[in-house]
Amino acid sequence: MSIKIEQVLWNRQIVDVAIHGNRITRIAPEISGEFDQVINGRDKLLTPAFYNTHCHAAMTLLRGIADNLELFDWLNNYIWPAEAKLTCEDIYLGSKLAILEMIKSGTVFFNDMYFMPQETVRAVEEMGIRAAIGMIAIDTTTADKRAQYAADCQALWEMRHDLSDRISLTLAPHAIYTVGEKALRQIAERSQADALGIHIHLAETLREVEECKSLHGVTPVEYLDKLGLLHERTLAAHAIHLTDRDIEILAERKVTASYMPCSNCKLSSGRFRFRDLTDGGVRVTFGTDGCASNDNLSMFDEMKCGALGAKNQLNSSTACSVKEIYNAATCNGAAAFNIDSGVIAEGKLADMLLIDLDSPMMVADHDLTANLVYAADSSCVDTVICNGRVLMQNRVVPGEKEIVRAARVAARRLLG
Amino acid sequence: MSIKIEQVLWNRQIVDVAIHGNRITRIAPEISGEFDQVINGRDKLLTPAFYNTHCHAAMTLLRGIADNLELFDWLNNYIWPAEAKLTCEDIYLGSKLAILEMIKSGTVFFNDMYFMPQETVRAVEEMGIRAAIGMIAIDTTTADKRAQYAADCQALWEMRHDLSDRISLTLAPHAIYTVGEKALRQIAERSQADALGIHIHLAETLREVEECKSLHGVTPVEYLDKLGLLHERTLAAHAIHLTDRDIEILAERKVTASYMPCSNCKLSSGRFRFRDLTDGGVRVTFGTDGCASNDNLSMFDEMKCGALGAKNQLNSSTACSVKEIYNAATCNGAAAFNIDSGVIAEGKLADMLLIDLDSPMMVADHDLTANLVYAADSSCVDTVICNGRVLMQNRVVPGEKEIVRAARVAARRLLG
Repeated sequence: MSIKIEQVLWNRQIVDVAIHGNRITRIAPEISGEFDQVINGRDKLLTPAFYNTHCHAAMTLLRGIADNLELFDWLNNYIWPAEAKLTCEDIYLGSKLAILEMIKSGTVFFNDMYFMPQETVRAVEEMGIRAAIGMIAIDTTTADKRAQYAADCQALWEMRHDLSDRISLTLAPHAIYTVGEKALRQIAERSQADALGIHIHLAETLREVEECKSLHGVTPVEYLDKLGLLHERTLAAHAIHLTDRDIEILAERKVTASYMPCSNCKLSSGRFRFRDLTDGGVRVTFGTDGCASNDNLSMFDEMKCGALGAKNQLNSSTACSVKEIYNAATCNGAAAFNIDSGVIAEGKLADMLLIDLDSPMMVADHDLTANLVYAADSSCVDTVICNGRVLMQNRVVPGEKEIVRAARVAARRLLG
Repeated sequence: MSIKIEQVLWNRQIVDVAIHGNRITRIAPEISGEFDQVINGRDKLLTPAFYNTHCHAAMTLLRGIADNLELFDWLNNYIWPAEAKLTCEDIYLGSKLAILEMIKSGTVFFNDMYFMPQETVRAVEEMGIRAAIGMIAIDTTTADKRAQYAADCQALWEMRHDLSDRISLTLAPHAIYTVGEKALRQIAERSQADALGIHIHLAETLREVEECKSLHGVTPVEYLDKLGLLHERTLAAHAIHLTDRDIEILAERKVTASYMPCSNCKLSSGRFRFRDLTDGGVRVTFGTDGCASNDNLSMFDEMKCGALGAKNQLNSSTACSVKEIYNAATCNGAAAFNIDSGVIAEGKLADMLLIDLDSPMMVADHDLTANLVYAADSSCVDTVICNGRVLMQNRVVPGEKEIVRAARVAARRLLG
């Protein structure tokens, strides 16, 4: 499969771009030759796509549930009862809806942690996006459920050689307060033995930090470090309540932090230290979290709320640049998951967006990165290419109405 | 002109809606008869449109200018030099671009304050939206400019009887630190004599409050109250740094406050007291501010950032309901400007949106108001009706590419 994008704006020049297989093979003022598909890039901006580093995709089925509640009321009385009804088919349909929404808002990768991950894998395979899928571990549940989680993860592990190269697997211990020390040590060992990534919620709430200090005498970061879970393949989701020493440890261990400004505000979890983490040398990326606490999967919302949140936190209008924010949403996420993309260059994997420069939100064009961070929304994304394949063109994803409608029917069964 | 919307979702029922002239004449399960235009409402939600209560529309031409700067560096070295180059034609083109963006994101009204307001009026007349246009007053400028502002406002005032019923005029003293006490008193008198609204920036920064206390011995709210500028037709833009007594005064005087969460964060102005103002009986609405400090005109972004900001400010996940937020963006804004709309009901002016229920951001459909506040973006708006006229259908606004391109050319001349 070969694609040519003609006469697109890239790095302030008008270029043609050639894609062969899943890689960008050439970028030049004019490229000739035969291509399977030619895309008109006129009046479009060619720019990296988004990499969402923390998600619970199938929670699209719980979007909008239970507004304006205390965290534990929300969890105990709404989220968990609805989740208890989720079937395999629900996870599949909810994941497809999530992936559709991600494609329509310019995202080509998500790092997921949820139940029945084999169903999310099925959705990813069909939809053509990239994903890192967590083999979830939670101890604080019934023996039956623990056995089911273990069986699901084992089944997923056994099919690893049959998965598309767009999919990787991670070890996903939910959090230090839901997974015991022994299991965490085993996960650390397995992560080394099988060169697997680790995906964990870390220091999301003050309560987690206080309980950890009380039980273990150290912060959550120090605790995980002691157990060997912090390394260059570890993704710390949230990472809000950190000491300066915690930030040093995360930087030394080359851990990636996932910033989720919308979820953090909506659940009142706390304020992410964007400036301190970035200056401290920690790789910062963006995640959306699940749709019950956001309530969408748009990385445009994360970039804008993330930049505004960083400025609000420090009472400083100079707390972050648009370039830092855009990199966090694009190349930093790709690098964290060892995906050879996140930038547009010859030889790189062909993940990219065509942004409609005739969208009113993209004009004036004094600084297109600033427009992408602060002004644009999903309506500005015209075309999405992932791994050399066109997933959306002219804002149309094949089969989208069927995906939306099937998910809506499934969601209605979860309440009442 | 008559319009029928067929089989649309409204208040959890499927209904037909009849519009004759500029009013909703009937809402019923089925309506027969002849109509000039019939709109298919299947798989759409009928919902109130947005009323943007503080804007500097033509600043779309400065969108994305000068990222990550201190307020006074930003103003002195970027915004003001660019504004000094603005011509009448620029204001017209920038206003058209702004109105296009507003229509595409579901807004049918904006309250504006900017230079050469007669050019913004021209754009409003052509585009079919509603607006309150400020007759701006700023003393802290050259005598030439003051004379020019006064002449522009006088010309606008003289054409008031020729304006469409979609347009009203306001008195727009910029702020207490840019308009002297004598002029403010005159504005208060004229507001009573001509029953005009007042549109003013109020208590936006701590510096404004401190200077006011030092010069006048009272807070900005107390100062304006003493001068007679606070009444039921007054719109206080920002209203951030308020004492409890200030909130009581605003409530007693029936002043409307305009909350601009994106601008407040981006410029680090401070944190709006949404809960306290609402509980104190002040009518709270949303504004976008201008595109140099936001950087878009999407009320979806204001609703989401506004709700998240209110929760973040109080460290409380229960700081505001989606209903309060949606009302602030819709009926509260209409009421503040005495527009007989903001809700969908027989007899009301026909301002409304059709939202695409097959947009992935609108599914699951457990709580559609929650989806509109937290999940939706402009891509979900399919059709916009203002004053009984269809301004956008199937996301198409007639002539949009020409508007965007003319504005882009004009904007490029402002820099360099």
